[in-house]
Amino acid sequence: MKALLVIAHGSRKASSNQEVADLADKLKQQSSPFKLITHGFLELTTPKVPDAVAELVKGGATEVTILPYFLAAGMHVTEDLPELLAQAKADYPQVDFTLLEHLGAADLMPSWILQQASAN
Amino acid sequence: MKALLVIAHGSRKASSNQEVADLADKLKQQSSPFKLITHGFLELTTPKVPDAVAELVKGGATEVTILPYFLAAGMHVTEDLPELLAQAKADYPQVDFTLLEHLGAADLMPSWILQQASAN
Repeated sequence: MKALLVIAHGSRKASSNQEVADLADKLKQQSSPFKLITHGFLELTTPKVPDAVAELVKGGATEVTILPYFLAAGMHVTEDLPELLAQAKADYPQVDFTLLEHLGAADLMPSWILQQASAN
Repeated sequence: MKALLVIAHGSRKASSNQEVADLADKLKQQSSPFKLITHGFLELTTPKVPDAVAELVKGGATEVTILPYFLAAGMHVTEDLPELLAQAKADYPQVDFTLLEHLGAADLMPSWILQQASAN
């Protein structure tokens, strides 16, 4: 069973964290290959990433795609996320984890920006 | 003449700032209604937003669409950007400035994330 985990930094501002939770809710409403979708934070708020991973595995996920919801490859993306990936693989060797590039590196980002800028 | 200004936070990490500059270069290579495209930063590096605005106006821009390249509506988005907008309007009353919502609030964000997650 395929699952999607969206990882964000986490903020002291509750509304910013809520934006990520709302995004995960919207993702669940769309048709996709992912039977389970959730979000996890690195810092400052919950659910933390290991708890989000545990929830997905408990729900039956066998393939987990991890999308870093970051625009820039700062230390969180280049160091923290590979560490979390290694830990997840060690904790759940029966699960196939795939860590994608951060969202800002998406080949389609220029197209998305122009879509957004032209629509308004 | 329509112009697009992508505003990012700015980082101490040069490679993160370069990601934004590279993004602006890719935007310029795409077909779009924007004859001029550039980027500006809020903090920590250059070009700063007022200089980016000045460059666009000097280049002949009469309509400037401003896209906040942020995933969350933190204080930079909710306070700094409206102030920068007000200053730009005061400095160049002949130019039509439109401040879009931050990228994370785009209606299409869930679709973009699923595009990215399904492609990999």
